[in-house]
Amino acid sequence: MGAPVTIALDAMGGDHGPSVVIPAAALALIRHPGIRFILVGDAARIEAELSAHPTLAKKSEIVHTDVAVAMDAKPSQALRRGRWKSSMWLALEAVRDKHASAMVSAGNTGALVAMAKFCLKTIEGVDRPAIAAIWPTVEAECVVLDVGANVGADSRQLVEFTLMGAALARALFGMEKPSVGLLNIGVEEVKGVEEIKAAHAVLKEAPLPIRYHGFVEGDDVGQGVVDVVVTDGFTGNIALKTAEGTAKQIGAYLRAAMRRSFLARLGSVLAQGAFRALKEKMDPRQLNGGIFLGLNGIVVKSHGGTDATGFACAIDVAYDMASSGVVERLASDITGFHAKLELEGAA
Amino acid sequence: MGAPVTIALDAMGGDHGPSVVIPAAALALIRHPGIRFILVGDAARIEAELSAHPTLAKKSEIVHTDVAVAMDAKPSQALRRGRWKSSMWLALEAVRDKHASAMVSAGNTGALVAMAKFCLKTIEGVDRPAIAAIWPTVEAECVVLDVGANVGADSRQLVEFTLMGAALARALFGMEKPSVGLLNIGVEEVKGVEEIKAAHAVLKEAPLPIRYHGFVEGDDVGQGVVDVVVTDGFTGNIALKTAEGTAKQIGAYLRAAMRRSFLARLGSVLAQGAFRALKEKMDPRQLNGGIFLGLNGIVVKSHGGTDATGFACAIDVAYDMASSGVVERLASDITGFHAKLELEGAA
Repeated sequence: MGAPVTIALDAMGGDHGPSVVIPAAALALIRHPGIRFILVGDAARIEAELSAHPTLAKKSEIVHTDVAVAMDAKPSQALRRGRWKSSMWLALEAVRDKHASAMVSAGNTGALVAMAKFCLKTIEGVDRPAIAAIWPTVEAECVVLDVGANVGADSRQLVEFTLMGAALARALFGMEKPSVGLLNIGVEEVKGVEEIKAAHAVLKEAPLPIRYHGFVEGDDVGQGVVDVVVTDGFTGNIALKTAEGTAKQIGAYLRAAMRRSFLARLGSVLAQGAFRALKEKMDPRQLNGGIFLGLNGIVVKSHGGTDATGFACAIDVAYDMASSGVVERLASDITGFHAKLELEGAA
Repeated sequence: MGAPVTIALDAMGGDHGPSVVIPAAALALIRHPGIRFILVGDAARIEAELSAHPTLAKKSEIVHTDVAVAMDAKPSQALRRGRWKSSMWLALEAVRDKHASAMVSAGNTGALVAMAKFCLKTIEGVDRPAIAAIWPTVEAECVVLDVGANVGADSRQLVEFTLMGAALARALFGMEKPSVGLLNIGVEEVKGVEEIKAAHAVLKEAPLPIRYHGFVEGDDVGQGVVDVVVTDGFTGNIALKTAEGTAKQIGAYLRAAMRRSFLARLGSVLAQGAFRALKEKMDPRQLNGGIFLGLNGIVVKSHGGTDATGFACAIDVAYDMASSGVVERLASDITGFHAKLELEGAA
């Protein structure tokens, strides 16, 4: 179990606030009894929820604030009004000041990116942070980044995303040299945009702690062709949401098909154990949590509309990252990479 | 049934050539008895396949050529070697010279884009052609473009793609004012890249023959939120392949889940009618065919690796387009739009 890990939770973030965050913390505590929490938000509402979870109450410290970032606030607005005092900010501050190893919020993504950058700062040598998603594959899971911290990325940023994604794969999947692919619209070297071609040229040659696979296409992601898929935040966000939408759509088809006839309904009753397993596999709550990479601290973003099961999964991810030293590993990879580039530049 | 529609087929395109193309033409002929074919390629191989399809043979004219475009040829290479004489070129030429109303090829996409542009030329006022896909939704189907003719698109091209996609939706779905959405990473006006924001500003104001919905996200495509989804060829290609990959992945999960236990296997036997319906719904062959838009003629690209069922669906799409006057409608929409822009510019 190791040393206790403390996680700061933005109790006011998301569509449901403490009524989802507190039960989620209770769920995560069952899975990781060594965990401790800092719960940031309206103390009265947090305490009301905690009364149903006495074990959690004993493991938690409450930090009160009246201020919460609105789900529809623009990043600049959120920063102006919520800095120094909002539940989102104070949870980040707990990480910055080493009171917590990680923070989880279901709040406004744009606001969280802006505040996290401002509060925690990027790791030295990292230009912009990225958001990584854990994507289910037919093999197991892979890391996809950036899925929305930035719009667009130049070749240097794509290389940084590669190092960040690889560090995360090492931390979460326990692999030493993850395979990495650059998302593109064809596997031939001639295809794609200039930034991607330039990143490809660097990754092919650079002695990085990865196995560089080359280009991958949209249908390779779910096939588990590589452990880490690197792309810019615009493309990554659209790919992620398209996959989520397709899964939802097929679920709807399946339910409709199973209601079509008496035999189908009977069959679906007999097969319900199998359907349950499939549903779990396809359940977006099981993979809930955008992971911010490139900051001096661990920040996990949960879906705004998620329930306690989903938010608890985001806490699990934060716990795994905090236990595995991913931030330190990432910092040393980035430093090593830039040192090499400088040596080459000087040579 | 109307006047007979003649369709030129690149019999040598795709991974399998005449052994897929000829049986596909026979299938399409059953569905559309008024159709006629020009079959372009190696006459001996075409005739060998035709011997099994006497009805098709009577409706077909063979145009012989020894030259076929290689599936891995670069576009410039294909143009240099295949112009004037390859099966791909001669099938396009049949459309240009009005011997055929449409052409279908399962050949190399890049080569087909380059040759089609060179042979048929773009419609006056269209900067670059686009490839549209018919995407299944929980409602019905929608048009998504560009899915790979170009890498990137400026705001003017995005507006042109809008008009092209709307003309296609009118032709295929029989709707007068299709709804159109711009693919973006958030529905708020502040988000996204400059080109998309600029196109959004034009589409919001311009009196076009569409219902402009605003931004849509990746998960809105399969939900059928709009009839036409507009994006650049890089993003569109990755979204399309990601959706195809996700469908394949869920199919694999489903098969595995149904083999897990005796009850599940029994259930799946009872429900097999429903599974068959689902499989058809998810079958990528049913939606096989990238539709080239913005050219003076109808060109449909079938998947290179498809079978006769898939290639026949691509012929169906070409037939529907040829019967509905989509090229003329598109040309008049584009002319009308540019005339309006000029008037506004002069005002």
